[in-house]
Amino acid sequence: MPAQPQMPAESSRRAGDGARPARRRDAAATREALLAAAKTLFAERGYEGTRLRDVAAEAGVDVALVARYFGGKHGLHRAALASEVVDAVSPAGDESATELVARIFEMWDDSGIGSGVPAFVIPGLAPEVRAPALRLTEQRLIGPLAAKLSAQGVGTPVLRAQAMVAALIGIGLVRAVGSMPELARADRDDLVRLLGPAAELITEGQVRRRPGASPSAPEPLSRSPEPRDR
Amino acid sequence: MPAQPQMPAESSRRAGDGARPARRRDAAATREALLAAAKTLFAERGYEGTRLRDVAAEAGVDVALVARYFGGKHGLHRAALASEVVDAVSPAGDESATELVARIFEMWDDSGIGSGVPAFVIPGLAPEVRAPALRLTEQRLIGPLAAKLSAQGVGTPVLRAQAMVAALIGIGLVRAVGSMPELARADRDDLVRLLGPAAELITEGQVRRRPGASPSAPEPLSRSPEPRDR
Repeated sequence: MPAQPQMPAESSRRAGDGARPARRRDAAATREALLAAAKTLFAERGYEGTRLRDVAAEAGVDVALVARYFGGKHGLHRAALASEVVDAVSPAGDESATELVARIFEMWDDSGIGSGVPAFVIPGLAPEVRAPALRLTEQRLIGPLAAKLSAQGVGTPVLRAQAMVAALIGIGLVRAVGSMPELARADRDDLVRLLGPAAELITEGQVRRRPGASPSAPEPLSRSPEPRDR
Repeated sequence: MPAQPQMPAESSRRAGDGARPARRRDAAATREALLAAAKTLFAERGYEGTRLRDVAAEAGVDVALVARYFGGKHGLHRAALASEVVDAVSPAGDESATELVARIFEMWDDSGIGSGVPAFVIPGLAPEVRAPALRLTEQRLIGPLAAKLSAQGVGTPVLRAQAMVAALIGIGLVRAVGSMPELARADRDDLVRLLGPAAELITEGQVRRRPGASPSAPEPLSRSPEPRDR
């Protein structure tokens, strides 16, 4: 049985096919279990490398249920993307780019890099796989960030927002894949201290003043996380 | 000369091992054509998405020659990587991070993003595909950059070098894939002006002074390359 002790909200909307409450709970739980497995495996293996039978096995259900609930692999991928967006990060209020970067890294540490991020960088991906991920990130992150920069009077706000997000995607994926060991095991707070001012420079055009720190010389990292560094 | 003793069963030509100079010239030309096609297709489609028969068709030779000259797909990928390294960018002398970033973008504009860069970010890639790309980038770019930073007295030089390269990888791949339109069509000089100071902040810990520019306020971009920006 999939590890879903809670009853998801959508089961109350008569999403299931049977008349009995038990049936509806099963359907919703199965759908949630498939979604959770899909998010994990798409993020770990990419779209092309993920087999539906592995998703079904991870969720503990029959593979035929993927077609029933999601219409196939594309549908499952889109659903996984959409469910990630609920937790996605948007720029808020007077938040600095450093604070936004901190929230993005926190989200990635808590929930993984997600199914959609690789869509930005993997060559040769089918457009129907790539497009929904791009659209969601544009709607949730890049668009609002560019609008905020524009309201602040910064020039070329869309380019600046895209450049910052693309740089973070590179760092997030390299960390998730583990292809650069020191970056992969770096402390999150140290990373925010290292990258936040650079993100401010890219988006806002300048580094915000911090108590006790000059704008052009951010404080040194508190720790040296990698043995090779000294 | 090829290192693989096996002759593929379907090989109908004996192009590589003849005694005549003309034959040897053919062999070298065939090998070069296969390499050039491989570099293009691996960069466009990724390792998994590239079929040997498409590489052979692009090069205008029989697919069996891939096995003869490179021992197979892994061997071809490694050879493509190694040939890119000849042109790879290493940090030089008193060069600033901005100048290094400019040279990297110039290389990517001239020769494409290359076969190796995607290896840093694609989930689920086989280790024997990923490892050579990581090793070459470590040897040519990250290692020398970290050594230079260390000599400059900057703390955590390896982490800083990796963070800068990972951020550039994100931006380079997003540009190559075209997944963020404004970033893809941005003028290279504008990108260097936008990202160079951020790269200096990440690696050197501060932004170098430029004539007529304050370290915390880089000059505005000269152009607005995207119609949506104003």
